[in-house]
Amino acid sequence: MPVLVVGSVAFDTVKTPLGEANEILGGAATYFAVAASYFVPVSVVAVVGEDFGAEQFKVFEGRTIDTTGIERAGGRTFRWSGEYSGDMNEARTLDTQLNVFESFAPKLPPEYLESDFVFLANIHPALQLQVRQQLPGAKLVGLDTMNYWIQRTPDDLRRVLSEVDLLIINDKEAGMLANTGNLRRAASEIRKLGPHSLVVKRGEYGASLFHYDSIFFVPGYPLEEVYDPTGAGDTFAGGFMGYLAGEGKVNDASLRRALVYGSVMASFAVEKFGLERLLELSWDEIQARVNEFKNMTHFNV
Amino acid sequence: MPVLVVGSVAFDTVKTPLGEANEILGGAATYFAVAASYFVPVSVVAVVGEDFGAEQFKVFEGRTIDTTGIERAGGRTFRWSGEYSGDMNEARTLDTQLNVFESFAPKLPPEYLESDFVFLANIHPALQLQVRQQLPGAKLVGLDTMNYWIQRTPDDLRRVLSEVDLLIINDKEAGMLANTGNLRRAASEIRKLGPHSLVVKRGEYGASLFHYDSIFFVPGYPLEEVYDPTGAGDTFAGGFMGYLAGEGKVNDASLRRALVYGSVMASFAVEKFGLERLLELSWDEIQARVNEFKNMTHFNV
Repeated sequence: MPVLVVGSVAFDTVKTPLGEANEILGGAATYFAVAASYFVPVSVVAVVGEDFGAEQFKVFEGRTIDTTGIERAGGRTFRWSGEYSGDMNEARTLDTQLNVFESFAPKLPPEYLESDFVFLANIHPALQLQVRQQLPGAKLVGLDTMNYWIQRTPDDLRRVLSEVDLLIINDKEAGMLANTGNLRRAASEIRKLGPHSLVVKRGEYGASLFHYDSIFFVPGYPLEEVYDPTGAGDTFAGGFMGYLAGEGKVNDASLRRALVYGSVMASFAVEKFGLERLLELSWDEIQARVNEFKNMTHFNV
Repeated sequence: MPVLVVGSVAFDTVKTPLGEANEILGGAATYFAVAASYFVPVSVVAVVGEDFGAEQFKVFEGRTIDTTGIERAGGRTFRWSGEYSGDMNEARTLDTQLNVFESFAPKLPPEYLESDFVFLANIHPALQLQVRQQLPGAKLVGLDTMNYWIQRTPDDLRRVLSEVDLLIINDKEAGMLANTGNLRRAASEIRKLGPHSLVVKRGEYGASLFHYDSIFFVPGYPLEEVYDPTGAGDTFAGGFMGYLAGEGKVNDASLRRALVYGSVMASFAVEKFGLERLLELSWDEIQARVNEFKNMTHFNV
């Protein structure tokens, strides 16, 4: 089954200890879509500016990514600039120019309204809610958010949380949302807000899934070098949702596998700058890394 | 096969956000011995003072722990006092009184010289080396150390590292010893110093094992409350070494299982103050938690 993502498309300028890149294609919906496209067709709802041209669209068009829902508005595309240092777990934002993204009002093409698997990437929770309410028949709606919305628009966030199935956030956001640094208690509090499933991304420490009575952990893939963490979280979400949509069934076993595939895709994303590594992946490489994850975590008793 | 541990026995005074305890039995060798005694007989080489009486010895004597090697010296037993706050991953030491431990010179009773499984808990690396050299026929010698020795006695530490099979340290110590924050590179550097196997303890994030070409991760057990982290690392080592000695074979499969049993024992240790929870464990509880770890980490692809 295809997956629908609503979120940002951007130009990123990134500096890390291992290099830098200037105005490369980025944004949550972009990373998500490229990752998910390894598993299923993807539909993207986003907005870009007049400076977004054929060169950028080519990245989507070379894959099973439908861009009907990418609106072209007058003005410039969203731009973000950031720098990573030290443990690379968090970027220092140097500059944000929202541009056309500032007045983004997601418009769903009619053919997207039947989507079964939907991901609402990190945008204003009131916009996430608008989209969610247009898709009452969706089988699984996933959501991302960030500290900004947790602190500034808690009521809007709670409203949309009460109507989604899955929340994918990082450990700091989970702690802030639940007001506790304890992972298990945070998961319990957050699942009371609505989502039956919670994925907590823990950077280099991997990810964990809380789903009914089940807790499942995947470690971070132990890379010798991280070139660029930009988009790793969105790539994770794309791998997770894409895998799940491909399987089509949502249960404990498929959610576990989705967590592994999300981790695998994210581990590739950070191996080069921007989308570079993600665009050149082979299915054999993905499967080989899934097997590595199995080998890194399984034991016989 | 029995396991031999050389290390500290102490009285601990501990304060955590959930309570406090005054002059309770502690020390690395104590936690190690109690944990390991669930799997195999344990021999302890340590020193205590005149204030260490029948009440304390009773803890060992109620289990398969041989105390022939615990020397009683004139003076007071080693005392440590510390406080945990915030994320509870690290104690703030309030007071250390080495007392009889200051001139500790480990003496091995003759019957210990045939030990196959040996753990050199955190003491001066020159003393660790002395012990190690008295046990040339040991099948597996494990070692712990800390930032103090890594910084103050690097040459002594390298000397003993070149003669042991296994190092069990935490992630900060691994980073300091290898001079890199990257786990995989640290593991590679450290294994060049001697030990064929490295276990890195990562606090609430679990533990990882590096062994020849194999990497294995176990998550931290997700507790809702941590009452007292004191001794968790030594308990982990005791569970690890005890399990391994019980199995008797050292290979990839047994080392993985040992990492799980170490994690299980450590997860129990922090559920109450001091040794309390460790002393009341049943074999069924241990097995049930091993199964929980399996359920938290396994997936089918």
